[in-house]
Amino acid sequence: SDPYSLLILPGDGIGPEVMAEVVKVIGWFGTHRGMSFDISQGLVGGASYDTHGTPLTDDTMALAQSVDAVLLGAVGGPKYDNLDFSVKPERGLLRLRKEMDLYANLRPAQCFDALADFSSLKREVVAGLDILIVRELTSGIYFGEPRGIHADGNNPGNEGGRVGINTQRYTSGEIRRVARSAFELARKRGNKVCSMEKANVMESGILWREEVQWVHDNEYPDVELSHMYADNGAMQLVRRPRQFDVIVTDNLFGDILSDAAAMLTGSLGMLPSASLGAPMANGRPKALYEPVHGSAPDIAGKALANPIACILSFAMALRYSFDQGDAAADLERAVETVLAQGARTADLMGPEGGTPISTAAMGDRILAAL
Amino acid sequence: SDPYSLLILPGDGIGPEVMAEVVKVIGWFGTHRGMSFDISQGLVGGASYDTHGTPLTDDTMALAQSVDAVLLGAVGGPKYDNLDFSVKPERGLLRLRKEMDLYANLRPAQCFDALADFSSLKREVVAGLDILIVRELTSGIYFGEPRGIHADGNNPGNEGGRVGINTQRYTSGEIRRVARSAFELARKRGNKVCSMEKANVMESGILWREEVQWVHDNEYPDVELSHMYADNGAMQLVRRPRQFDVIVTDNLFGDILSDAAAMLTGSLGMLPSASLGAPMANGRPKALYEPVHGSAPDIAGKALANPIACILSFAMALRYSFDQGDAAADLERAVETVLAQGARTADLMGPEGGTPISTAAMGDRILAAL
Ligand SMILES: CC(C)[C@H](C(=O)O)[C@@H](O)C(=O)O
Ligand SMILES: CC(C)[C@H](C(=O)O)[C@@H](O)C(=O)O
Repeated sequence: SDPYSLLILPGDGIGPEVMAEVVKVIGWFGTHRGMSFDISQGLVGGASYDTHGTPLTDDTMALAQSVDAVLLGAVGGPKYDNLDFSVKPERGLLRLRKEMDLYANLRPAQCFDALADFSSLKREVVAGLDILIVRELTSGIYFGEPRGIHADGNNPGNEGGRVGINTQRYTSGEIRRVARSAFELARKRGNKVCSMEKANVMESGILWREEVQWVHDNEYPDVELSHMYADNGAMQLVRRPRQFDVIVTDNLFGDILSDAAAMLTGSLGMLPSASLGAPMANGRPKALYEPVHGSAPDIAGKALANPIACILSFAMALRYSFDQGDAAADLERAVETVLAQGARTADLMGPEGGTPISTAAMGDRILAAL
Repeated sequence: SDPYSLLILPGDGIGPEVMAEVVKVIGWFGTHRGMSFDISQGLVGGASYDTHGTPLTDDTMALAQSVDAVLLGAVGGPKYDNLDFSVKPERGLLRLRKEMDLYANLRPAQCFDALADFSSLKREVVAGLDILIVRELTSGIYFGEPRGIHADGNNPGNEGGRVGINTQRYTSGEIRRVARSAFELARKRGNKVCSMEKANVMESGILWREEVQWVHDNEYPDVELSHMYADNGAMQLVRRPRQFDVIVTDNLFGDILSDAAAMLTGSLGMLPSASLGAPMANGRPKALYEPVHGSAPDIAGKALANPIACILSFAMALRYSFDQGDAAADLERAVETVLAQGARTADLMGPEGGTPISTAAMGDRILAAL
């Protein structure tokens, strides 16, 4: 069969280090499972800015459009904090999401049994936690126009004299397609979707609620659907997170709520994500996979980073891009095995201490467990 | 001296029940501390809609503008879920905030020692927690124009054919005044402010960051200031909440982050809030006080509600409207005393059980402790 084409964009900070471990894992599946991968590499974020003066070149963008899956490490760092908005590292990532039209961002928040005590929440609140947040990723206030900072000339009451504007804008079609993703995923899990917005305050939230309900009533009446205000959602995630199965929400609420959910598990260095778009000619969805954690510039280059989130992102690629669910499950099990054996990178050191292993050593342990 | 004028708006659900206990407390300060109060009552939210067809009448609005402080219970309930957006219970509250120009919403998240085990977080993470969130309350996406749901006629690709729009809009002046509130409050506490936005994604967030920094550099260089992306803020609140002293953020982020912070304490029924505007002719700020909890329709009318959040909101009124800091501290101490003695309403029942006391009994216990 055709090789699987991958574009690897390690990015900034710890991105290159964790991606090096993923490359080993990809190699393992090539050698031991007869999969064939066609791999290209590219630059994104600050790394691209340093070389090309832009966080993503048109060539890399075109390449991303042509492959089966993009694997991304992380972008950003204090070095780039004072860059102009239009060339900040984040713009590279946002351009990929927007131009590939990756509207469904899947962020599982799973609590690994071996790590349940790492959470700031009580073990009995988070043990066995397994939520999937489906975040809309191509629209809303991240991309709406008009936007910008302007002089507020005709307003003498405005000390400072400027105004900053962003626009939250959702079409029914944008809401329906991500709702469908959430319902499809729920059917393979707990069959329950909770949709979050602020319909009590925002008209775009009313439209969100109505369209999600419409998709439910017309296409997924078998899935249990509830609606919750996003502020209450944040509360409930802290209070009783296991009440949720799949959560579907917009770009901005998804950003915040998924980070809160990630932190419940106590192990941010473990959490992968997939960003999926429409099917391409070969039937595979447009796709980008990346860890939930950021570029962690403070620990970059020190072999301290945990590669598991990035490796589990590749497991998601196996599942969602290549329909290799069994291989994905094998890889996930290998991760669980090494954790159960006590392998720990520095971020996973509890108060009881112990000796952390390096980024590369963690990668090797996972290969061995495979 | 002149009496303190109060407008009491019990609102919906448990609002009237908890407010009845506040009225007893007000009476106590009149009798035992020689304070004199001039009290009016009014309707807001669903209660006003039921009588007048609007969640806030112009007469009540005018009364609110004329008093020293408004005390509000709670608004909303499932009975009103299908009302038109413009007459929903929430619109009454939002109109009060907007027309009184209550730009600084103070939401303390404090963990009461006697209740630290109620949190879903580990005791060692939340014991002694004392954060103050200062949320901008009169602008941002809650009020920005254009807004609404429209037909999206010229867009055949939009299945469903509608579009929902809201506008995030902040002026420099709006940001500076709430930043000043946060810095002033920080000086009386831990002298530390953390400002939260999404300056990596939103221009309004860039303006926010720049203006907060400007106020700091020009007027409060002695206060420690840091900036954090709001998604990371949500994470850090879960991970290590005690790193914060005062948090200042916009209307929407403040809504979500303050609810998450409230839940950290494990006792939502305990948390008060103050919403403050500019000084009136008598030097007192425009002010509205309300518990953070909602109308809790499921337990309304059953004498199960915890009146403490509403009583502590009155303590905030004593402090911020009437400059009666000692009286406020006495009231807060009385609450701590009854908790330490083991008085518990139903919401404060732990797994170990016990017998809850009624809303009124909790009010009486607090009076006795005074
Ligand atoms: C880096 C940033 C642009 C991004 C976002 O806000 O979406 C990040 O926080 C995320 O959640 O992937
Ligand atoms: C009731 C609602 C309009 C309100 C808000 O969103 O501001 C509430 O959630 C709050 O935080 O006071």
